[in-house]
Amino acid sequence: MYEKLLEKYSNQVEEKLEEYFEQVQSQGFISEVHGHIREYVLRKGKRLASCSTILAYKGYSGKVDEKILNACIGVELYRHSILIHDDLVDLDEYRRGGKAFHKISSLDDRFGEGMAIFSGNILYVMALDAIQNSGFSKAQIEKVISLFVNEFRMVNESQILDLLFEYTQPSVEEWYDMAKKRAASLFKATMLAGGIFADAQKKDLQVLEKAALQIGYAFDIQDDIIGTFASEEQYGRPSGGDLLLGKKPLHIVYALESRKKLIELLRKKELSLEEIEKAKTIIKRCGALDKAKEKLKEHAKKANELIQKTSMSSGSKKFFYGFIDYVAESLEWYK
Amino acid sequence: MYEKLLEKYSNQVEEKLEEYFEQVQSQGFISEVHGHIREYVLRKGKRLASCSTILAYKGYSGKVDEKILNACIGVELYRHSILIHDDLVDLDEYRRGGKAFHKISSLDDRFGEGMAIFSGNILYVMALDAIQNSGFSKAQIEKVISLFVNEFRMVNESQILDLLFEYTQPSVEEWYDMAKKRAASLFKATMLAGGIFADAQKKDLQVLEKAALQIGYAFDIQDDIIGTFASEEQYGRPSGGDLLLGKKPLHIVYALESRKKLIELLRKKELSLEEIEKAKTIIKRCGALDKAKEKLKEHAKKANELIQKTSMSSGSKKFFYGFIDYVAESLEWYK
Repeated sequence: MYEKLLEKYSNQVEEKLEEYFEQVQSQGFISEVHGHIREYVLRKGKRLASCSTILAYKGYSGKVDEKILNACIGVELYRHSILIHDDLVDLDEYRRGGKAFHKISSLDDRFGEGMAIFSGNILYVMALDAIQNSGFSKAQIEKVISLFVNEFRMVNESQILDLLFEYTQPSVEEWYDMAKKRAASLFKATMLAGGIFADAQKKDLQVLEKAALQIGYAFDIQDDIIGTFASEEQYGRPSGGDLLLGKKPLHIVYALESRKKLIELLRKKELSLEEIEKAKTIIKRCGALDKAKEKLKEHAKKANELIQKTSMSSGSKKFFYGFIDYVAESLEWYK
Repeated sequence: MYEKLLEKYSNQVEEKLEEYFEQVQSQGFISEVHGHIREYVLRKGKRLASCSTILAYKGYSGKVDEKILNACIGVELYRHSILIHDDLVDLDEYRRGGKAFHKISSLDDRFGEGMAIFSGNILYVMALDAIQNSGFSKAQIEKVISLFVNEFRMVNESQILDLLFEYTQPSVEEWYDMAKKRAASLFKATMLAGGIFADAQKKDLQVLEKAALQIGYAFDIQDDIIGTFASEEQYGRPSGGDLLLGKKPLHIVYALESRKKLIELLRKKELSLEEIEKAKTIIKRCGALDKAKEKLKEHAKKANELIQKTSMSSGSKKFFYGFIDYVAESLEWYK
């Protein structure tokens, strides 16, 4: 039931996106670029970002209308503008069953990377533009635009910190300082947008914001665990790629605290398959994986309690409970 | 007189920028990043972008006040967000007497480049935020934000085309399609912002927009000629860097039309100093340099005529005439 509804909404969002790209005007090579952007954004995905917007909106207004679907065009463009720069800097070559954006061009790497930087920028302003044209009131739009301006800054700050952590050994506190601006910022932006567009009360928006943070933490911890432990068949990417880059997800932060030995492995430029397995074993054996999983459950629990405190309809609350369980428990949702 | 006024305005803008950076809140490594951003934005420059905003504003309102200086914080942040990504993709290592932003970090290239991508993004939304907080009316701000959203998209499209031209042989028409979204877009954004904030009439804004296009073309042609022909002492960068990358400024587009031979040189991965000199000679001897200079003068003349048609004060018109002459004639203004 929960998954079916999610699929229904993501199909509606995808239809809207198709309509949107139909009317984008361009000529010459720029229309080729828009073609790549269209293909990239329309790759099959769970669309958790825009579904959170829709669920929050429905939770307060009781409906899913054209206006909120218009706004979701902006949410999806925003999400993908971030992904393009993220994959480029993280040297990821694939995204959702296709090439990462900087790998799409048939010209050389320099061109592909340049196109990815500028196309990410273009997607971000297309996102602002789509929100501007969603059909909501000027006051609502002003608030949501300001949210998407502020959170874009936060996301980019977290990206710098995430990159910095490859070169440093962050404490748990420093990890949370980074993480509160990453997925937490995305869920804050998408859920608050739904609430603002549905005229939710200020008090309720504050609770919703806190819930979004907890969902974001749960999401990130889960996502990072998948990144380290899921096999290529489960995940669609080679296993242990984050270890190769020396990334520092929470389970590694915990692991580093108890096992200095991992440091040596992560410092190495090239890890053998055997060494990757060794690293995984250390993370598991020292209890860091379990600790991270516990934290994930704690955040999911807090998110559930906070959602319960809001005055959203009980139907929408149920969807959120399902959604949170989904984030916290499934290994399959991330493609 | 003209240059003194420009210096006075740019000093005022710099004071405002210093105030702005004083109140930017951040902690940990992000405050280091803001320190780099501050140093980068405050490097001594002509500040042509914000001076155009101020001159247009003064031309219609007769004054230079706090509000327009606040808006100029946004103009400068906008300009520099573009420069950071531009230098990264163009592999430039220096900017205005200092390191290019992606060369600032003491960590490795990957970190420096990632930080440049995310910091460029941060600067762009800081720019929108500064315009939002300039103190003008909601209606004026809405128009200017929408202008800076739209033109940012244009600039990024032109960057993709500029990069593409390294791999293709653009016609004069294609060059203009790219150039109308580059410096032309920047002057459009900055001059129209001044006009909108001063409540200039719609008709006048249309003329101002056309004038901005012509100034932009003149600026780009001049800038590109300097890039190819000015010596390192005059320019502050090694001479002929655009030739090494295979860039296609207007004088090269003209040259390519008459001299296919240049193609072979530009296709080579490594050019000797002798070959760079050879390329310069071809561009000069076939008359392409003179043609580009003629075009530059034509645009400057048209810009002058269009400025004359506006209803700005005669004082401000004079400044613009001086400004246009400056762009069209000086080799020294670009550092």
